[in-house]
Amino acid sequence: MKARVHVTLKNGVLDPQGKAVHHALQGLGFAGVEDVRQGKFIEIELEGTDVEKARSDVKEMCEKLLANTVIENYDIDIVA
Amino acid sequence: MKARVHVTLKNGVLDPQGKAVHHALQGLGFAGVEDVRQGKFIEIELEGTDVEKARSDVKEMCEKLLANTVIENYDIDIVA
Repeated sequence: MKARVHVTLKNGVLDPQGKAVHHALQGLGFAGVEDVRQGKFIEIELEGTDVEKARSDVKEMCEKLLANTVIENYDIDIVA
Repeated sequence: MKARVHVTLKNGVLDPQGKAVHHALQGLGFAGVEDVRQGKFIEIELEGTDVEKARSDVKEMCEKLLANTVIENYDIDIVA
């Protein structure tokens, strides 16, 4: 079973990486870009077939390691 | 209009960041994790309402800046 996790900065938290990408895109001539935010995308391959257990395990992984919940949100998708 | 871009390492390309996360998860006692791959997730806010133009612009952004197409794949979702 596979979990797909998105970790993104909360609204209002400054995103220097996104700002750098935005600036670089403007430098390349992409004028229609209004904002860029960059986050992390983590794919986790899990043993077992229990979707609910997988979801609760991955939630714990996010809380303990993958996300800094003071400044980041996370979003979990479990795929077969 | 918003574009959501996933940039992931191609299969077979070594992923030291994913390996580090995998190792850290094992150290925290998560035994059921078989593999971890880490990629980037980029949200781009775009002017205009033309979905096809947005898709082709973002494809060009990926080719020129966001992804290293020698070792990375990218995937584009345009959301309203």
